This record gives sequence, C-alpha cells and structure tokens, in this order.
Amino acid sequence: MEVYLDNASTTKLDLKVRDKMQQAMEEAYGNPSSIHDKGEEAKSLIEQSRSGVAAKIGADVEDLYFTSGATESNNLAIRGLLAKSSKKHIVCSAIEHSSVLDLCKQLKKEGYRVSYAAVNSEGFVELDGTIEDDTALVIVMHANNEVGVVQDIEKIGLLCEEKGVLFHCDAAQSLCKVSIDVKKCKVSSMSFSAHKLHGPKGVGALYLSKEIEPLFYGGGQEKNIRPGTENVAGIVGFAEAVKLDHKVEAVKVLRNYLMEKIEEIPKTFVNGSKEEILCNNVNVCFKDIEGETLLQHLNLKKIYVSTGSACSSKKEGASHVLLAMGLSEKDAECSIRFSLSKDSTKEEVDYVLVSLKEIVSTLHALD
Amino acid sequence: MEVYLDNASTTKLDLKVRDKMQQAMEEAYGNPSSIHDKGEEAKSLIEQSRSGVAAKIGADVEDLYFTSGATESNNLAIRGLLAKSSKKHIVCSAIEHSSVLDLCKQLKKEGYRVSYAAVNSEGFVELDGTIEDDTALVIVMHANNEVGVVQDIEKIGLLCEEKGVLFHCDAAQSLCKVSIDVKKCKVSSMSFSAHKLHGPKGVGALYLSKEIEPLFYGGGQEKNIRPGTENVAGIVGFAEAVKLDHKVEAVKVLRNYLMEKIEEIPKTFVNGSKEEILCNNVNVCFKDIEGETLLQHLNLKKIYVSTGSACSSKKEGASHVLLAMGLSEKDAECSIRFSLSKDSTKEEVDYVLVSLKEIVSTLHALD
Repeated sequence: MEVYLDNASTTKLDLKVRDKMQQAMEEAYGNPSSIHDKGEEAKSLIEQSRSGVAAKIGADVEDLYFTSGATESNNLAIRGLLAKSSKKHIVCSAIEHSSVLDLCKQLKKEGYRVSYAAVNSEGFVELDGTIEDDTALVIVMHANNEVGVVQDIEKIGLLCEEKGVLFHCDAAQSLCKVSIDVKKCKVSSMSFSAHKLHGPKGVGALYLSKEIEPLFYGGGQEKNIRPGTENVAGIVGFAEAVKLDHKVEAVKVLRNYLMEKIEEIPKTFVNGSKEEILCNNVNVCFKDIEGETLLQHLNLKKIYVSTGSACSSKKEGASHVLLAMGLSEKDAECSIRFSLSKDSTKEEVDYVLVSLKEIVSTLHALD
Repeated sequence: MEVYLDNASTTKLDLKVRDKMQQAMEEAYGNPSSIHDKGEEAKSLIEQSRSGVAAKIGADVEDLYFTSGATESNNLAIRGLLAKSSKKHIVCSAIEHSSVLDLCKQLKKEGYRVSYAAVNSEGFVELDGTIEDDTALVIVMHANNEVGVVQDIEKIGLLCEEKGVLFHCDAAQSLCKVSIDVKKCKVSSMSFSAHKLHGPKGVGALYLSKEIEPLFYGGGQEKNIRPGTENVAGIVGFAEAVKLDHKVEAVKVLRNYLMEKIEEIPKTFVNGSKEEILCNNVNVCFKDIEGETLLQHLNLKKIYVSTGSACSSKKEGASHVLLAMGLSEKDAECSIRFSLSKDSTKEEVDYVLVSLKEIVSTLHALD
C-alpha cells in the first residue's frame, strides 16, 4: 500500500481537473490576447474560471488576478502594497510561510522595520501592541501550513481597519477547507494556490481590494497587475479544483481518528490547537525520535509525510513555527506533520497507525 | 477548414507533450521539495527536464532556471542584472517585446537612462554608438515576434564583451527554430517560453551566466533565483516540446510558398528581411486595407492570424516594430503576420491564399 499524507505540501491532481485541463489544452489553445475566435475562446475560459474562484471567496470578479502560485501572490501583494504606502513598518506573524518571512528579511535590508507578532502555545497570533503609527501592513496567514491552526482573520481584519493599516493574508492552505469571505475579513490582499486543493502546480491567484504596483511589466494581461501569457489550462484546472467536493467533514472525522490513535502511542503529543485547525492536518511530536528519521522509516513503507513545510524541508534546523509556539528545539525536531485529503481512506490511516506503532517502538527500543 | 496561422502568438500543445504532462500530473504528483520518494520522483523529473533544455541551448545545466514564462524571465533578468550593477544606462532595441519595453519605461521612472537602438528597414538592430561608459546592459531579442527577423546575436555578444557590458537576449521566438549556443553568443541572460514551441502556457526558462537578484523570495526553489513550488508537469512538457521535430526546413519551404503567392496579390509587400527571418514567419502589408479588418474577414473563414504581437493586440495604434523599420503609420496599420508551425499543411496554406485573394479584392473594390 502507498499512502500519501503530505497533502499540505501538495495534492494529487483530481481526474476531473485533469480532464478539464486537457480539454482546454487541446481545444482552447489560442492566446487569450489574440482577437480572433481562437483567442476569444481561451479568454472566455479564463473569465469563467475567474468568476468561479471569485464566487468561492465572496470577491467581486474584477478583484481577482491569476498568478503562478502563492509564493508569487505573496511577493506581489506585499511589495505591491508597500510601494503604494509611505509608511515603513511591517507587522508579520512569526509563523508565516517562507515566501513571506524571506521577503520580510529582504525588506528589512531595504529599509523597512519588521516586527514579528508572537503566537501562543496553541498557535494563535497575538497582535496586541504590535501596530504602530508608522505601520503600513499587517501580515497574518489564514491557516498555518505546519500545524494547521486557523487564525480568526475577521477579527484581525477589523483591528486593521480600525488602526488604518493594510492587511495581507496568505490563504494557500485554507481555500476549500475553511469558508472564506474576503469582504468580511476586510483583507487588502489574499493569496491562493491551486496545487493545495487537487489543482495543478504553477497556478495561483491574488485577491486585491487595494491598488498595488506590479512586479512584472509587459503585455497588459490581468489588467497589468500580472502580465505574461496566461496559463489557460492551469487557470481552468484551478477553477475546476475549487468546485470539487473536498469532503471537509469526512476528512475531519478521519483526521480525528488518526489524531486520537496517535496520542495513544507512548511519548507523543499533538502540537498546537486540536480544535481550531484545518480538517486535514495533525502535527505530532514523537519525543526523542528525530522527525527526519521517522519520515525515512515511513518512506520505506511507502507512507509519505513531512517534517513541516516542503518549502523549508531542505533547510537546516527546527521548524520556526513550532519554536514560536514554545516547543523546545529538540521537541520541534521530533515532530511530524500528517496531512490528509478528500481521497484519504480509513484503510490507509489504519496502515499508517500500525506502521507508526511498529517504527516508533523499534526506535524507542534503540534509545 | 480551420487554419491556425498565429503560431508566433502561441502554439497548439503537441500530443506527445500532453501525454508526458499527463503522466507527470498523475504519477509524479509530489512536491519536488519533499524529501520522501514522492518528492524525489518529482524533483528527478525537473532535473531531467533541465538537462534536456540546457543541452538544447549549449548551457551548463546549473545555469538554467525555470520560470512562469518569457515575460517573467525578461523582468527577472533585466531587474536582477541591473540590481548587481552600479551603472545606470540601458541600451534596448526599439523592437523588443512589450515585457521589455514596458519594463524599460518603468526603469526610466526609477532613475535609469534608456537609449533605444534603431533598426534598419530590414529589421536589423544598429548598436553603433549606443554603448556609453555608464551602460550597464544591452537588450536585443534573438528573433522578433512580429517580423521574425533574426539578429546576429553572436556579433552583438562579442561587442558587449568587448565593451564590458551585460547582454540580455529574449529568445522566446527562436528556440527550436534557430540553433542557439548561449556560450558562443556570450549572453548574460536569455529568456525562453514553452508555449511558443507546442509546449504548455505558463512555463518558461531563464539562462544566466551572471549573478542576479531575484524578484521573489521564498522556499529556496531554483536555487533561490525563482522560489515557489515548481510547475512540474509544465516543466516536463517544456522539455518534451524542445525534443519534438519542429520541421524547420519543411516549414520554411511552406512559408516561402505562402510568401511568394501573397506577393502576387496586387498592392502587397513583405515587411523586413525575407532571408534572415524565422522559418515560420511572414509579415505582409496589404496597402489600403486595415490589418484588423482583414483579420476579421479571415476570422470569419476560420483563418486565424494576427496584426502583430498578441501581447499588444488590444493596445491602440500601429506596431512599434514596423514604425521602427520605417513604415508609415498607415502601412503599419495595414499589416498582418502569418506564422506557421510544424503542423501547417500545403492544403491549409492554399485555402488561406484563395481566401486572402477573395477578401483583398472585395475590400479593394470597396475603396
């Protein structure tokens, strides 16, 4: 049996998505900017897709832009919003994705001041006292990619509105798992990625309620916010993925089962909140067992999990998310993320549990 | 009959490419940054693809980076190279793609000086006297997207080397049509796009022989030059497209036939060189007939052509390329680009010729 429980890193393309993409690639192969029928056909597919994705997040269709993914969306939004502001202070949660944290490091070199908002042991961001008169932008992700904790972005949005600061939110992990209403949470910008929800890699979106400066210049596509020939099939695939039944409740039941059974294994504990987290995610510390060692043993049994973010998996050191939540470096390095999907089955989870117990007891015996 | 002669705008995905992409999407669905086997499988596909594309252009494999397309590659290279230079003058050919020209306009706002190198009536760039002591970068595309003229980039590269300036070259149109050796032409950077050669939209590459600053920050992918989860299937499709038989000689024979027969139509002439141009391209002025009108009449017969660049097709005014070559505004507005592909047939071209003659004589009769 092969069990893929690394769906927070990326998901398997859904067959319905594949079929729609294939149709787009084979039939609507024109350039959406061309003014003949072959171009119009492609353009029309993009606009249908835009409507579908916009509707899912409660956005006006004209406020949604397609990009190459959430990394680009985060970079584009943050730089683009800052370029329109004269203020030089950024508040960024300590548990953001590397595409936000590494950009903030760079912005610091360019003269911005960055304050990192702490999180509590459950993983919830604490913004109290972080916003200053010179704060241009607050950055808090919707759901964390490592522990799955879901922030109360409506509350954060209200606070930002009251303080008169911009609010960027990375929703790469939460789209189609937690309901999103961009207007209720009053975001200035919000990032999305297709490959986290059984759509294709290489496509994302950016919702914008404010004006920004673009990162690219060119042929005027996406109203000059994101020029370049559109990834038509990718965009169509993204919209199709958004329409899928993501089986949030069923996934949650299965994840709860996995979580409960894992907690029965000696010397384990779940990292962060067990309640306000994504339906598919559980991050567990197996005390005294290095995450990477456990991952390799699971890999030999064709069980694919992660020690944290795929985007940081080749970097050295313990997870910045777990450290920010107050774990010791050792416990952080002994943690593993299991992330399920709509396609996960009880049979798979049972195989994982049997394998885990066996591996963990073997490794503990070696201590 | 439906005849697509707008292959300089974009091409139809080849079925071999589609099959390889489908395989990658369905099987190698892991995140290339994940350290388990599902991740390694995807990573390995990317590295095989990188080797294939690098070999095609004579590059060392470590100097090639995947991007979302040529617009991104151009923006990334030009900004990235300039960020590493203290010089503030740019020489840019007058006939570049909008992703270069619009970026140069923006760079001018940011304090750079930009000189636009003229072209002669054949379309060849004249750099004499443009390079100054403060010149950081020369930008000349390999093959022009409107008239197809192919610049002598080895000569330009040698000049840039002698003068000690950086050289960026946009090769989106020429890859797989003209042989490219990045080392012989001594480029600092060169941009490529998959969808111009029967590969997928939304994927491109950038060759770099110099260090640059990135445009995005994030998870370290593409050695930090271009972070973001890789478009695995797109990259695989790009490499497969590069391997196709692009039938350069056969396409040229067919294009020459089209060109000769079109020239027999009264009041027509070919724009630019008829020799040093891409195998698949011919740009024709039909005097006194507006390009857009002709395009619409052809469209009704399911013949798809372009008045110039798709990326500029919704902008007002005559082609900047044709104007730079000395055409009058009126003649420039009366011009049409026909761009063939490896899949074009004599039957299709004959249908186009019959239709063209009919439409043109009807429109001339209306004068």
